[in-house]
Amino acid sequence: MLRLYCAPLTVSAASVIMLNETGVDWEPVRVDMAAGEQRGEAYLKINPKGRVPVLDAPEGLLTETIAILEYLAETLAPALRPADPWGRARMREAMTYLASTMHVNHAHKRRGARWADRPESLADMTAKVPRTMTASAGYIDGLLAGPYLLGARPSAADPYLYTVLNWLPGDGVDVTPFPAIRAFMAEMETRPAVAKARAEGFFG
Amino acid sequence: MLRLYCAPLTVSAASVIMLNETGVDWEPVRVDMAAGEQRGEAYLKINPKGRVPVLDAPEGLLTETIAILEYLAETLAPALRPADPWGRARMREAMTYLASTMHVNHAHKRRGARWADRPESLADMTAKVPRTMTASAGYIDGLLAGPYLLGARPSAADPYLYTVLNWLPGDGVDVTPFPAIRAFMAEMETRPAVAKARAEGFFG
Repeated sequence: MLRLYCAPLTVSAASVIMLNETGVDWEPVRVDMAAGEQRGEAYLKINPKGRVPVLDAPEGLLTETIAILEYLAETLAPALRPADPWGRARMREAMTYLASTMHVNHAHKRRGARWADRPESLADMTAKVPRTMTASAGYIDGLLAGPYLLGARPSAADPYLYTVLNWLPGDGVDVTPFPAIRAFMAEMETRPAVAKARAEGFFG
Repeated sequence: MLRLYCAPLTVSAASVIMLNETGVDWEPVRVDMAAGEQRGEAYLKINPKGRVPVLDAPEGLLTETIAILEYLAETLAPALRPADPWGRARMREAMTYLASTMHVNHAHKRRGARWADRPESLADMTAKVPRTMTASAGYIDGLLAGPYLLGARPSAADPYLYTVLNWLPGDGVDVTPFPAIRAFMAEMETRPAVAKARAEGFFG
């Protein structure tokens, strides 16, 4: 059975939703982030990067949300993967923005110690997060074709986008000016895969 | 004809190599980063993110290195894309690490103003780059199957990895302790697609 190393309120919630979307049986392995389990010796053997999610698949262990989501779509939920190379390219373009820009902006709120040491620097990073995340929200609002990210049909990018957009209020971003984001969130919340992840506490 | 908005000494060099690998005719559109062209009104209409690369493809404009590389492999160089879903997943896992962790570590050297405002914070970020990039190099050295990232056969991840590894010396990383990285760099430099990108100044 597929297993996912995951934790509430992290990006691993995207992979939780995606596994729910596939309809297969799978097992969550909850990592206790508050206790620092992700930095412990046992977990670092599973993922030397000390992060969640990790997918325990028949072929081995797989990290990185972009890789996990498309692998699950390719193998178990082909309807969530565009049928043409350009559609897939647009899906990966959006997912890469989330991974390399928007999640990174968010991480400067509490994870600034990855990139600097002085307490004043970390406070300076935290202070800028509402601005960088508002800018990211504006870009996403313009990108959203609606109701899903790529248009009429859902894709593997949607669980990822939904997860990251959940961070906006906590990051000091008012979503009122972003109608496409609000409509997308509402649409996603009609999906049983999202409702199940919420009910199981992956969004707090 | 395919066109690529690109600039020397940026991550766009990965897409330059990949286009060379495809063997098709393509045209570079050089963006003058030193003059700030990427933040000008004309360029922001091409890419509102103000970054390179952008691929001008028959279907439209495509941003983000991960998306561009796999799109080019899918459509023009299928030998550079693993034939099975797990191989593709491993390729995307490595590319995502480069985009969301290693490139981000590197960007804190000179682009810290994306995430903080005070000059002291930016200096603090810059000072940490040799440590974060050494850690990333260590992870990559362990990941490299050799001679290419995924093993015996090259993939779309290799131009990306080669480009990012070129930043190590300038980021204060001694590559002597990383034999897999040194062997990979040497192997890549035997490829005409890399030699052409180097000869045209994309690596300085």
